Amino acid sequence: MKVGIVGTSGYSGAELLRLLAGHPQAKVEYVASTSKVGQKVGEALPSLHRFYDLTFEPVDAKALGARCDVVFTATPHGIAMELAEEILAGGAVLIDIGSDFRFRDAEAYPEWYGSVHKCPELTKKAVYGLVELFRSAISGADLIANPGCYPTSALLALAPAVKEGLIDLDTIVISSVSGVSGAGATPKPMYHFPDCVENAQGYGIPGHRHTPEIEQGISLLTGEVAPPISFAPHLIPMSRGILTHANAKLKSDIKSDAMVELYRTFYKDSAFVRVLSDRFPQTKLVAGSNFCDVAPKVDERTGRLLVESAIDNLVKGAAGQAVQNMNVRFGIDERAGLWAPAITP
Amino acid sequence: MKVGIVGTSGYSGAELLRLLAGHPQAKVEYVASTSKVGQKVGEALPSLHRFYDLTFEPVDAKALGARCDVVFTATPHGIAMELAEEILAGGAVLIDIGSDFRFRDAEAYPEWYGSVHKCPELTKKAVYGLVELFRSAISGADLIANPGCYPTSALLALAPAVKEGLIDLDTIVISSVSGVSGAGATPKPMYHFPDCVENAQGYGIPGHRHTPEIEQGISLLTGEVAPPISFAPHLIPMSRGILTHANAKLKSDIKSDAMVELYRTFYKDSAFVRVLSDRFPQTKLVAGSNFCDVAPKVDERTGRLLVESAIDNLVKGAAGQAVQNMNVRFGIDERAGLWAPAITP
Amino acid sequence: MKVGIVGTSGYSGAELLRLLAGHPQAKVEYVASTSKVGQKVGEALPSLHRFYDLTFEPVDAKALGARCDVVFTATPHGIAMELAEEILAGGAVLIDIGSDFRFRDAEAYPEWYGSVHKCPELTKKAVYGLVELFRSAISGADLIANPGCYPTSALLALAPAVKEGLIDLDTIVISSVSGVSGAGATPKPMYHFPDCVENAQGYGIPGHRHTPEIEQGISLLTGEVAPPISFAPHLIPMSRGILTHANAKLKSDIKSDAMVELYRTFYKDSAFVRVLSDRFPQTKLVAGSNFCDVAPKVDERTGRLLVESAIDNLVKGAAGQAVQNMNVRFGIDERAGLWAPAITP
Amino acid sequence: MKVGIVGTSGYSGAELLRLLAGHPQAKVEYVASTSKVGQKVGEALPSLHRFYDLTFEPVDAKALGARCDVVFTATPHGIAMELAEEILAGGAVLIDIGSDFRFRDAEAYPEWYGSVHKCPELTKKAVYGLVELFRSAISGADLIANPGCYPTSALLALAPAVKEGLIDLDTIVISSVSGVSGAGATPKPMYHFPDCVENAQGYGIPGHRHTPEIEQGISLLTGEVAPPISFAPHLIPMSRGILTHANAKLKSDIKSDAMVELYRTFYKDSAFVRVLSDRFPQTKLVAGSNFCDVAPKVDERTGRLLVESAIDNLVKGAAGQAVQNMNVRFGIDERAGLWAPAITP
Repeated sequence: MKVGIVGTSGYSGAELLRLLAGHPQAKVEYVASTSKVGQKVGEALPSLHRFYDLTFEPVDAKALGARCDVVFTATPHGIAMELAEEILAGGAVLIDIGSDFRFRDAEAYPEWYGSVHKCPELTKKAVYGLVELFRSAISGADLIANPGCYPTSALLALAPAVKEGLIDLDTIVISSVSGVSGAGATPKPMYHFPDCVENAQGYGIPGHRHTPEIEQGISLLTGEVAPPISFAPHLIPMSRGILTHANAKLKSDIKSDAMVELYRTFYKDSAFVRVLSDRFPQTKLVAGSNFCDVAPKVDERTGRLLVESAIDNLVKGAAGQAVQNMNVRFGIDERAGLWAPAITP
Repeated sequence: MKVGIVGTSGYSGAELLRLLAGHPQAKVEYVASTSKVGQKVGEALPSLHRFYDLTFEPVDAKALGARCDVVFTATPHGIAMELAEEILAGGAVLIDIGSDFRFRDAEAYPEWYGSVHKCPELTKKAVYGLVELFRSAISGADLIANPGCYPTSALLALAPAVKEGLIDLDTIVISSVSGVSGAGATPKPMYHFPDCVENAQGYGIPGHRHTPEIEQGISLLTGEVAPPISFAPHLIPMSRGILTHANAKLKSDIKSDAMVELYRTFYKDSAFVRVLSDRFPQTKLVAGSNFCDVAPKVDERTGRLLVESAIDNLVKGAAGQAVQNMNVRFGIDERAGLWAPAITP
Repeated sequence: MKVGIVGTSGYSGAELLRLLAGHPQAKVEYVASTSKVGQKVGEALPSLHRFYDLTFEPVDAKALGARCDVVFTATPHGIAMELAEEILAGGAVLIDIGSDFRFRDAEAYPEWYGSVHKCPELTKKAVYGLVELFRSAISGADLIANPGCYPTSALLALAPAVKEGLIDLDTIVISSVSGVSGAGATPKPMYHFPDCVENAQGYGIPGHRHTPEIEQGISLLTGEVAPPISFAPHLIPMSRGILTHANAKLKSDIKSDAMVELYRTFYKDSAFVRVLSDRFPQTKLVAGSNFCDVAPKVDERTGRLLVESAIDNLVKGAAGQAVQNMNVRFGIDERAGLWAPAITP
Repeated sequence: MKVGIVGTSGYSGAELLRLLAGHPQAKVEYVASTSKVGQKVGEALPSLHRFYDLTFEPVDAKALGARCDVVFTATPHGIAMELAEEILAGGAVLIDIGSDFRFRDAEAYPEWYGSVHKCPELTKKAVYGLVELFRSAISGADLIANPGCYPTSALLALAPAVKEGLIDLDTIVISSVSGVSGAGATPKPMYHFPDCVENAQGYGIPGHRHTPEIEQGISLLTGEVAPPISFAPHLIPMSRGILTHANAKLKSDIKSDAMVELYRTFYKDSAFVRVLSDRFPQTKLVAGSNFCDVAPKVDERTGRLLVESAIDNLVKGAAGQAVQNMNVRFGIDERAGLWAPAITP
């Protein structure tokens, strides 16, 4: 596959280049940027020095579509929707790591992103690229919306129970902690090292943009409009990783062991989901990898399901899942370029 | 006040010495230890070098009770209950920073701590030392059970809403993150720096010992036995601090502004609780201090109350609250020895 | 003492407010800012909420000099030199925490700071405020140049050996590591949390501005112009703290024990310098405090003196030392407002 | 190649398994352990779950030698020397990641390691496996002593200047900072997270065991016995990475640009050494990779060479270099299994 990438000022685009450096069947052909045109990849992104002999080119949607089999947009919201039509018209598959095509219903977009969607028609064609849940739809899609990091961790934590109808959907409470790389590469006071180390804090509570994305994921699983769920994200002093605590009232009695079995069955064909029963998910044990570790527990005192899940927000939560989507879409081994253990410690 | 301290191998005992070094009306008279007898305080605890001219003595409950006005036990569970009677008999007030006297009902003790309680009668006399909630009982108590760190953050987050009957108690979901100092000073693989940095993980889910303590706190507030609540603690890569997300279904419509006002009224006489409306609590902005910052939010989409609270687990969550209890008990300014801003950044 | 402070957008000014909140004899009278005029201290700096009932005022040098006994400038270089004359004219003592008055010879200023000095005459009157080395000069000074953080740690590490003529000055090699707060409060890519955590790097090697300041300190100690020394600063993933390794060829045989004794004698009247023989200085054991821990070692294999020293860059390396200078200048106990143990862990 | 590994309780052995999981020409055949016999690799080391279908076997040197083409020992010092003869006798190449065979002269061993060497004859046959410096000797060796982490960073920083005779060897001063994983996987108070975060400290100054290893490396480069050098290691709050500052008096005038050129020429055939001129080495930009980034600078004021170098202590400083040694020894591409960019941020 010939690959194009738009946007490498953020962490997701750079991570994509890291992962694709080792992909056996994909070759990066075109790296597009507004700010780095003319620079070598290894100069602009020094950790990639010696891995690419490529120079940043201007963002030209037509050329991207024409020269590439697949184009990844790793851009702030609002950009991909301006490029999409031309990229698709050129015959390339488009995988948007940003948030422009995640909502099926473009009418919900303004409420959460503050501006009108520019190509609502395309949005309808987009497939939500959470591979473990929507693999077959992805395999035939030309426009794939790569999920947000929090929704990836939350939906993988809840999907088996939701799909089996085991929980009351309107009792779902999700609390997540994220490493700071999830906030992007742009320095701001909240992410300034001295103010961030030894600090934990909530933000966007309630009202984070990933809330409706999680609700939509649940709706897609059940086929019915999901009720509002409660989602609270937090920032903690680490770079990579999301740990999600998902919590919901069980509809009926079920033991932890049975729940684990049910989760294992649900994910039996998913190479990147590991259902744990004897330990809790740790972000460090998925760091740098595309794994999502999930541990469901039944709390018999409260009659609730408690699920912990861990991902690397830049891999399974962004660039890795994007590569996984590409693999699925092009019919090659889902693990290609991604099959590496976490780097720990 | 002449002060005795039992147990300084852990962080709470050492923190107590740090705080008391600046207390205007208390003087440490007796530091008791099993492992450091004969050592100078400043040798065993080098950050205290030049602050104390005291030598560790053996643990002698009788002598502690006789020589001190107040004795703090900062010991693993099971120790204070062996010393309590003699300390009290000597005429000293006992403030247990450990967990031996937190349960009103000693019969609940074995289920959560794995052994039978040795002085169930004393347990009945103990007062639960969460100052902002039970100040008047504390002022007359001779045996004060200093609260656990998680319960402190959770109960201060929920108390006004619980007291006013605004939430359905059986919908309470609490998810907290803690710095590693909360796990104590003893090295273990889970707390080994390389395995802990860049790592977030849950533990004790469900079933953490602080769960019944939170439920008991709610019961004390309402006067009725509280239903089981859901509590999930997590370990994150920082040393100090607890950030708690408490979440419950509201019984009726109320706006965020009104909720903030209600919280401010509830805590109007509490110097150490700051109710925030324009920012979220951050552990760094309470680090090293006795403050608890609390921010209640109403989520109108889900009809839920979402509260974030932050404390320093070793100060408001342990040694600082213990000093505050002493101040209240001895009728002096609650802030004595504690009135210092957080150290940030 | 009535205190004025100019500049609290940076960490040093805020730290000064933290320390002065507990000073028994100083009262902050005037907080001046260009960006926060009209804001309450506790709003602009939320960790100080409930500690000050003060509102930021415009920077008016004349009024500062008139209303205050002592004014601290915690401003980027180039600002204090514009305010100094008027502040001094008003009768206030000026303590500059910035770098405007550190060089005795204003002609050296442009080479290292890139612009001409605006009041070279005043520079000659300034006293270099490293208390342990120049206490008597400070006690009579009206313009005190608070030392840089690296020079504080390096000069306290080397002073006894330099003063006694034990080392070859042209063999001095200094390598330091600093927490990121030393780089200030302004977000930049190099200090962005994800790029800073799990990262160590050098910067300004050779040629850091603190190099000539260290050389000048050595010159002041010996009375002769010091040769160029080698200084290499590094950034490591922590907020507070400087650890300095100072290394020089010994002129003659001397054992480690004798060196320790010599250091202890040199610092015998210095409450804030602790000379260690049985452990190494740790930044955590001075964090939040005004201490400098120093451990000199003789390496008999190489005939070199190896000294490790640790300070909190914002306290002994900035605001704490400034308060110490004020105390010395006004003839009160050097420890006033500063006598607190480190906050650890 | 069929690979055997002895010792995976430490980080080096586990890292070896991580790297070999992606090696195109090596297959792990035998994992030996004293404590994990009978456990699956993916159970004992959960980040490797799904990557190995291997079970830990007892340590049987004879069987290791017989069944494997190459055996890695990642064991505490003193173990490999007991296994070496039998492993070699079986026909396998032995690469010791520990320190048993690093000294050419076994007589120096007791002074630094506290016990007599058990197979001094073998020591003479061992080749010091710093690939970039001793590639040809390694290619023909059956017993390869994998270098220590600090010596790797220090020798790569100094080798070109040493080899060209540009510096006075008896003026060498080296100061390094290391992530805590360098201290191993065993929990100890000094490495307990709360005491380690926000802390920097020296240790083993002077007298660290890597000092004579660096001196020996210099001797091997010059062919003459090197004078004692000064080496000071420090522990900083990160998991992975070593940053070394190496400093020495230049014998003659040379400009920084010329020095960089000389370094680039020296390392022109070394895929894993990147000589930097426009930025400083950062541990984060080599994390998880086998790179060593090196930046030489000439300080014209002091006439000194200042070199900064960065490695990942567990990769280039341990397991990665061991794989590189294997590749060189077996005549395959030096980069096999190692050619991946750093994981950043």
